[in-house]
Amino acid sequence: MTLQHVNGERLWGSLMEMARIGETPGGGSRRLALTAEDGRARDLFCGWAREAGCAVTVDRIGNIFARRKGSDAHAPPVVFGSHLDTVPTGGKFDGPLGVLAGLEVMRRLQEQDIRTRAPLELVNWTNEEGSRFSPMTMGSSVFVGDVALDFALSRQDPAGITVSDALAKLYPHTELAPVGGRKFAAYLEIHVEQGPLLKEGGEAIGIVAGSYKALYFVATVRGEAAHVGPTLMEQRRDAMAGAAALTLEVERIGRARGRDGRSNAPHVEVFPNVRGVIPAEVRLSCDVRHADPTESRAMADELRDACGRIARERGLEIALEQYFEFGPIECDAAMASLVRDQASALGLACRDLLTVASHDAVPMMRHCPSALFFIPSETGISHNEAEYSTPEQCRHGADVLLNAVLQLAR
Amino acid sequence: MTLQHVNGERLWGSLMEMARIGETPGGGSRRLALTAEDGRARDLFCGWAREAGCAVTVDRIGNIFARRKGSDAHAPPVVFGSHLDTVPTGGKFDGPLGVLAGLEVMRRLQEQDIRTRAPLELVNWTNEEGSRFSPMTMGSSVFVGDVALDFALSRQDPAGITVSDALAKLYPHTELAPVGGRKFAAYLEIHVEQGPLLKEGGEAIGIVAGSYKALYFVATVRGEAAHVGPTLMEQRRDAMAGAAALTLEVERIGRARGRDGRSNAPHVEVFPNVRGVIPAEVRLSCDVRHADPTESRAMADELRDACGRIARERGLEIALEQYFEFGPIECDAAMASLVRDQASALGLACRDLLTVASHDAVPMMRHCPSALFFIPSETGISHNEAEYSTPEQCRHGADVLLNAVLQLAR
Repeated sequence: MTLQHVNGERLWGSLMEMARIGETPGGGSRRLALTAEDGRARDLFCGWAREAGCAVTVDRIGNIFARRKGSDAHAPPVVFGSHLDTVPTGGKFDGPLGVLAGLEVMRRLQEQDIRTRAPLELVNWTNEEGSRFSPMTMGSSVFVGDVALDFALSRQDPAGITVSDALAKLYPHTELAPVGGRKFAAYLEIHVEQGPLLKEGGEAIGIVAGSYKALYFVATVRGEAAHVGPTLMEQRRDAMAGAAALTLEVERIGRARGRDGRSNAPHVEVFPNVRGVIPAEVRLSCDVRHADPTESRAMADELRDACGRIARERGLEIALEQYFEFGPIECDAAMASLVRDQASALGLACRDLLTVASHDAVPMMRHCPSALFFIPSETGISHNEAEYSTPEQCRHGADVLLNAVLQLAR
Repeated sequence: MTLQHVNGERLWGSLMEMARIGETPGGGSRRLALTAEDGRARDLFCGWAREAGCAVTVDRIGNIFARRKGSDAHAPPVVFGSHLDTVPTGGKFDGPLGVLAGLEVMRRLQEQDIRTRAPLELVNWTNEEGSRFSPMTMGSSVFVGDVALDFALSRQDPAGITVSDALAKLYPHTELAPVGGRKFAAYLEIHVEQGPLLKEGGEAIGIVAGSYKALYFVATVRGEAAHVGPTLMEQRRDAMAGAAALTLEVERIGRARGRDGRSNAPHVEVFPNVRGVIPAEVRLSCDVRHADPTESRAMADELRDACGRIARERGLEIALEQYFEFGPIECDAAMASLVRDQASALGLACRDLLTVASHDAVPMMRHCPSALFFIPSETGISHNEAEYSTPEQCRHGADVLLNAVLQLAR
């Protein structure tokens, strides 16, 4: 089969147009899941997908599927996509690249009038980021049955709005389809790398061979509310100071592992969080990650020990509860080969790497043969307004996606 | 003049009835300033004050004055009171004791048909705690002209509601009086001690001779938002970890001063505060306090040094801004003597002490001869549901207030 190429300018134009929805002063995008901004992004995407000849459906968790018929109506679809939601400090690429590269595949096939055997479906998964509603990769996790639909719909944002409420506001008149219950022939996702490895190595494509093992916790630190003034320093059981000590321990645990370890304490809730009262309770979200699962578990053990030590030293109670884990995954070797072969045929340098973060492709890996691949990040930074890949890097990624889709669906 | 005594049972009954407004599961009260709960407390208080023969007015910052006529209508009033608002984790005594002991004075004079020469005024100051709106001691500070009325009215709570909006909701049909502009003959405030000193020493009354010097800051820690997963530990500029290091430095600075020093970092705002993003910015409120003002300034210098060191070590920016200071005050010696004499005449053991926290009496000290005195705290803790003084301790305090008022206003 001859190699196909996308229209790189059109892809770039769509990325820039999408980025204007929820545009931030620093050149990024803020489109939290199922907000009005996400709604506008969804509408723009659906309009584009219909123009590209696709039939659009939305399921009960808000996942959007844009389907292009194949010559064999009974064949399971080849599916590709990513997410349009962002973190509050989001860039232009994390998520939208995967959706809009997929859109470019649909547009290219339409204008070249190429009909595949298998149907194709381009998907926008709901709430990949988990910034507004927890857990993350919500839409894809519900689709594959890892998370129950009712549980997901009941999740609340910090203002108490549920996923169900937010969906009803975005889709008051749309009949939503059942979630899941059908098999894909294959799933492909292209994403921007969120670290510096491809940029450092000079490769155009990073093929995800597996993942880190990540363990996610909430540490609830309980002390005693008291007046900030008269209460003697020796009398205090200050939950904030305990949480600060724990935050530094979390950081130390990751740093001690060099380039293969990560650890975070990025989210905190303080009660009562007023200037006149020594904090009674702090809930600190934290995680530990390592390429080697044995090391991840050792990091979690160190975290548990640190909680016990800080609690004893400070007269606090600290309860450490694991709420999520991810990996290690091993990606489908045949799917990885197929992507690698297309990149090579296109003359693009590749390397294998591990993903540290989860993506919608991760739940999909238990559902059907799946591949996840990255393009370089020029700035090596993501979840930041400065996130950047060049038009050429985006085009190369979309070229690989287009040819991989054709291989799978021809 | 013969010594007078309050009705201790009635005082206790009123304290317990007031505490049921905004009652918390742990036996405390939650009545943030100008909320619906504060409104109900105000209504209960105004009804009681009218029954006790007082005329009630509310001023434009929401301070409530319950006035009892004197035989000389032109004499400046003798004023006493405190506040009915609480912190989110408030107890039954911090604030209400001063207001309801004052109410008991009014009730006792009414039933004994005692007419004073000077008019008496019982005051409930607005937003002493500063938990909902900053700054604290708002009503009394506006009254004496330390804080501009328009500035105070424009202050917002975390939901963006202004003091002005909140007042309009509580008083839609009340014509509010001008704030301040008149002199008091004297001001008296009784308050529960918020530390362990009277309990340790066995005294019934603590006479405040002066205050600590307290300096209040906001430290704004700026790092860089980035993905919690792929971003290498060595790449990070994590504002949360920097704020954690600063929180521990704040604690160390206070602890190093033994029983005479205090330091706090009780309030934090994190941006973006989501699980997927390394925090870009943290705003940490902190303060340092010492009985010796030279030491307070040395503590502030250490805090500033710590900010610089942490910023350098971690590649962060940290801006430390002082937003408030308090003390040292020296209390009016003649007023302190008058209170001490009444306590002695009543057979109550006294000691002098310094206040670590501010109270409404502090702004009043620049306005008129003022006295602030404490009763013991059984638990030595305040701003906590476990705050507790016995009925007898409350009665002793109110007896001192009653006789001091009569001395000043006879």
